[in-house]
Amino acid sequence: METNCSNMTPLSPDFAEKENVVCIFGTGDYGRSLGFKMLQSGFSVIYGSRNPSSASLLPTGAEVLSHSEAASKSHIIFVAVQRDHYSFFTKLSKVLQGKIVVDVSNNFKINQYSESNAEYLAQLVPAAKVVKAFNTVSAWALQSGTLDASKQVFVCSNDSKAKQAVMNIVRALGLTPHDQGSLAASKEVENYPLQLFPTWRLPLYIGAGLTVFMFLYCVITDVIYSAVTEKKDASFRIAVSIPNKVFPVMSLILLALIYIPGVFAAIIQLYRGTKYKRFPHWLDRWMLCRKQLGLIALSYALLHAIYTLVIPIRYYVRNRISSNIITQIRKNETSPFDNTIAWRTDAYIALGILGFFFYVLLGITSLPSVSNSVNWREFRFVQSKLGYLTLVLCTGHAVLFGWDWFLSFSKYKWYLPPACTLSLVVPCTVLVLKLILIMPCLDRRITKIRQGWEKSSAAGTKI
Amino acid sequence: METNCSNMTPLSPDFAEKENVVCIFGTGDYGRSLGFKMLQSGFSVIYGSRNPSSASLLPTGAEVLSHSEAASKSHIIFVAVQRDHYSFFTKLSKVLQGKIVVDVSNNFKINQYSESNAEYLAQLVPAAKVVKAFNTVSAWALQSGTLDASKQVFVCSNDSKAKQAVMNIVRALGLTPHDQGSLAASKEVENYPLQLFPTWRLPLYIGAGLTVFMFLYCVITDVIYSAVTEKKDASFRIAVSIPNKVFPVMSLILLALIYIPGVFAAIIQLYRGTKYKRFPHWLDRWMLCRKQLGLIALSYALLHAIYTLVIPIRYYVRNRISSNIITQIRKNETSPFDNTIAWRTDAYIALGILGFFFYVLLGITSLPSVSNSVNWREFRFVQSKLGYLTLVLCTGHAVLFGWDWFLSFSKYKWYLPPACTLSLVVPCTVLVLKLILIMPCLDRRITKIRQGWEKSSAAGTKI
Amino acid sequence: METNCSNMTPLSPDFAEKENVVCIFGTGDYGRSLGFKMLQSGFSVIYGSRNPSSASLLPTGAEVLSHSEAASKSHIIFVAVQRDHYSFFTKLSKVLQGKIVVDVSNNFKINQYSESNAEYLAQLVPAAKVVKAFNTVSAWALQSGTLDASKQVFVCSNDSKAKQAVMNIVRALGLTPHDQGSLAASKEVENYPLQLFPTWRLPLYIGAGLTVFMFLYCVITDVIYSAVTEKKDASFRIAVSIPNKVFPVMSLILLALIYIPGVFAAIIQLYRGTKYKRFPHWLDRWMLCRKQLGLIALSYALLHAIYTLVIPIRYYVRNRISSNIITQIRKNETSPFDNTIAWRTDAYIALGILGFFFYVLLGITSLPSVSNSVNWREFRFVQSKLGYLTLVLCTGHAVLFGWDWFLSFSKYKWYLPPACTLSLVVPCTVLVLKLILIMPCLDRRITKIRQGWEKSSAAGTKI
Repeated sequence: METNCSNMTPLSPDFAEKENVVCIFGTGDYGRSLGFKMLQSGFSVIYGSRNPSSASLLPTGAEVLSHSEAASKSHIIFVAVQRDHYSFFTKLSKVLQGKIVVDVSNNFKINQYSESNAEYLAQLVPAAKVVKAFNTVSAWALQSGTLDASKQVFVCSNDSKAKQAVMNIVRALGLTPHDQGSLAASKEVENYPLQLFPTWRLPLYIGAGLTVFMFLYCVITDVIYSAVTEKKDASFRIAVSIPNKVFPVMSLILLALIYIPGVFAAIIQLYRGTKYKRFPHWLDRWMLCRKQLGLIALSYALLHAIYTLVIPIRYYVRNRISSNIITQIRKNETSPFDNTIAWRTDAYIALGILGFFFYVLLGITSLPSVSNSVNWREFRFVQSKLGYLTLVLCTGHAVLFGWDWFLSFSKYKWYLPPACTLSLVVPCTVLVLKLILIMPCLDRRITKIRQGWEKSSAAGTKI
Repeated sequence: METNCSNMTPLSPDFAEKENVVCIFGTGDYGRSLGFKMLQSGFSVIYGSRNPSSASLLPTGAEVLSHSEAASKSHIIFVAVQRDHYSFFTKLSKVLQGKIVVDVSNNFKINQYSESNAEYLAQLVPAAKVVKAFNTVSAWALQSGTLDASKQVFVCSNDSKAKQAVMNIVRALGLTPHDQGSLAASKEVENYPLQLFPTWRLPLYIGAGLTVFMFLYCVITDVIYSAVTEKKDASFRIAVSIPNKVFPVMSLILLALIYIPGVFAAIIQLYRGTKYKRFPHWLDRWMLCRKQLGLIALSYALLHAIYTLVIPIRYYVRNRISSNIITQIRKNETSPFDNTIAWRTDAYIALGILGFFFYVLLGITSLPSVSNSVNWREFRFVQSKLGYLTLVLCTGHAVLFGWDWFLSFSKYKWYLPPACTLSLVVPCTVLVLKLILIMPCLDRRITKIRQGWEKSSAAGTKI
Repeated sequence: METNCSNMTPLSPDFAEKENVVCIFGTGDYGRSLGFKMLQSGFSVIYGSRNPSSASLLPTGAEVLSHSEAASKSHIIFVAVQRDHYSFFTKLSKVLQGKIVVDVSNNFKINQYSESNAEYLAQLVPAAKVVKAFNTVSAWALQSGTLDASKQVFVCSNDSKAKQAVMNIVRALGLTPHDQGSLAASKEVENYPLQLFPTWRLPLYIGAGLTVFMFLYCVITDVIYSAVTEKKDASFRIAVSIPNKVFPVMSLILLALIYIPGVFAAIIQLYRGTKYKRFPHWLDRWMLCRKQLGLIALSYALLHAIYTLVIPIRYYVRNRISSNIITQIRKNETSPFDNTIAWRTDAYIALGILGFFFYVLLGITSLPSVSNSVNWREFRFVQSKLGYLTLVLCTGHAVLFGWDWFLSFSKYKWYLPPACTLSLVVPCTVLVLKLILIMPCLDRRITKIRQGWEKSSAAGTKI
């Protein structure tokens, strides 16, 4: 592995003699894990500690010295110390002169400090080349770095040579470096590992809230109602029948919710006659979570599809069908084949399947690797054109399904409209508004506005 | 955000004092959107305009000067002007001396000009370091840059320092830079955002054409025929029954079409006895759209799967089954359980499912991120070995399905063979040809040829 | 295309006059294919050969000279010669002085030689800047470079300028360069194209082995047993019924197998009281193939889902149902609707569907592009939290399914418990162990240990 190290940082020939030596400040868990990994990859590791004598549990083969001694022995110093202890760096400014100091620290809260740890460190040792790296890799991942998610190391610095050197070390440890640009990005880099699906929060809350409401709504109309009025126990519906009502409704509503902000935006721009005014905050947020809303809607659609396909293997259904047949025979009558029913049922099944198909297509194009391989124009085409096609198909699916219910108030239990009717309110509104907006007169105006034209002026577009 | 800027272009220390100042030529829509975004990210923006006085609607905080004045105030000049107006650059060659000039322009047609806008600009201001960038990001995306597809910025230039500086700005704007190499790539970069699934055109046309044909074919045999001969209205079949005939047929045919070019190529190479002659153009094109053909075939397979699974919940089917049972009882007879039928039906169902499974597997491996994570050998293994396995399974599925039809001419309506029979022509041909080609004698020869051996000579292979 | 070349290697101005000339050592297949591609991309190609006179089949437009002559004419030399012939380089050390020598060679076996070909070459010509590249691209792919998998070129070198120059050439050929760091990585780069799913071997063997066993087990209990005891031919079950027993069982067992190593690891760490001791080798290997095991388990789950959904369209099932109805009528009795059965069946169907849904979610997050876009914390959350949720749901699904069987020994054929019962052993064990491990007292201790605490000492954690 010696060759490995002697080739470590080709960018800086002056490092030649020392380059396979790395120094690590801090003998805590992360420092030890990092040193452990470094030794495995063929580096020689020197620890810098406040009181070297008491430092324990260090990986075998590592040396421990005082901070200044350790720093003097290497060109690259990894700082695995908590920000609160950075103070001692002020004393080291001389020995760190022109050296690469890698800040691997993480905070406990997002935006815990006004400036990032790395920038703070850079202020303490202005003479050193501070690089932010490794904070995205956990100590655990360093020791058993097998999971994909743990392989990415964001690196940023104001000194590109130092950045390259660190990126080479990252590669040598079998990890994947990602250049994040200047140290200004370090705050973002430090916040990154603390996040837990921030963009998913809002959409998930919205989805969950609506789902709970719809579920209770259906429990009332399907279970409690029949329990009260007909004294019939239909509680078993809670397992499959009701979810299979809630899921499609949710899916359709969420799908429609994706296209509302776009419509609102268009209306606002039409009204203001310009695109150079910021949208209201809530609209911006809404726009930002369209993708997540879409994926949640897709999962509901998927669940609806499976729940529907299992219908015929359900005990309840089989039992009903057979008893239905038996009664036909007992009564010695046959329900004749009705062409219109055949048409309607097959039609809504077909619409549902096609809608689902395009749904899945939208889902696939929102995979990072796919959406990165299409250009802006193609992405817009898929997300807006195909998106609306999906919405139309699914709405049609629901309309045909609830065909004769909408107005037959016999279906209304306790004056509550069937879920299916409810689900159509939002999508229909969206589609109507969209239809109005794509009328030539309005459409032309919106296009002009989006190209930079303004009511107030006549500034054309350059590009 | 000042820190942000003061760290912007670490690569070029000489920029230090001016680096947070960017200059934008052109006050059109794109220029304004770009300036808007720049200001948001903490840059100070100076516009260069033909007549600064009349320039309107500029983002607040931006300055407007004449071209030369503006250029003199910054080291990086973004050119948001249409190519037709580039002429004025000739006058600026002195002030642009050694500065970074970023061409963000796009054309309206692919290959509109012989040389790319960036190369044209580079000829006008030879003293400047021309960088091509940002043309893949729309003005709209700059203002609400939330969609994945809009985050990618292709950057190319002959000056690597200039390229790095621009890439840092790209990162500072929260976008993802992609190094595309030298300015020679600028033409490709300029064409990129104008494309709309160019590689998908041909496959989609082929797919659509065949589908329409098959659909009409089935309408004739299933609807019109029974309408004419039996005076029975089977029009409802158009919704589900017929699509579920067309989809599997299409899927099988398209799947087979993927493997034809490979077979042809082998035959041609065998005949020519060399691999160093170009294939006929049509064969090259065909080979280039195999992936797309495969994904279309996969979607048809998926649709077929779902359409098949909904069969039992169709009104038509339920009605038929129950009436069938009722008649059995009326006639007081029972259709006995037939083991062979059970075998055959279960067998083709099983083959179909397994075929579909490998189909999906192929689809997944063609996802960019997956196919990039496998090496050439693994990719070939999956695409050719698993591909042929899928073809065999699906063909078997069709054969067992149409078992006793093929020869029973009673099934032929107006002498038209059933769709299922038609669908088997292509795949069977492919499989037979393949079988012949993998016979040891031929296989050995092809391998030799592919390793560089030629009939005419005896040149061995070095690698 | 001249412009293309004159812009090729901007990094090294001194190349200016020669830069569109590349030299290729070796006139074998790969050399020829490479030259072919180079010429297409507008380079002028000069071949270096042992005896130029006899070199044949070279692409038209290429020149052939002796090694030294050819090398003297270009700054970049591609070495398409087998390692065994590298000896002649010793003679060329002078002419290669300071030039870029690109090693494109591959071996026939993984780790065929102690040091990589590129490192070996670097020792032979210390004066040259050796770059490893192109070995991941096959000759075939160079000529018809259409498949995604063939577009990636790993580049590594100790000289960053040389690396950049080669990466620009790679881009100019329409391929995607990947910086792999220093030449120390060349061994890995050379092994890469020789691999065939190394990480999949073990999991596939385990999966296959268990599957065969389960299949035979079910054949005995379902086919042979009834053939022997009841003289009934149930062989048709082999096509669908039995697979649909084997798949869910396999899926559940494999899913459980994923979480065993984690549990073991925790127990071992608890026992040892430290995390700084290596795990036994077998445990490490097991941990490394969890992802693959999971994907195999997912495919089984998918197959199980489809096999289950086709149940109602099976001839066997339809026949059984109708005869069942007919007998009911003949006997003039009706099987009454049983609420508890309805509950149980619907419940296990629902659990199964939800379990499958999260299964799919896990599968999606293991796509490279997705797992790269989440951070370590999010990945852990999905893989462990959602993973266990999936395990619980699927186990519940199986428990409810085999509800009254477990203890009804009437179901035991030849004292063999039903497959479903078998399948529950492993998952239940895992869940019980996990339950014990997450008891506060133990959990706290494990957390401490994972943060670096050790029984022996009292070293706290710094980060």
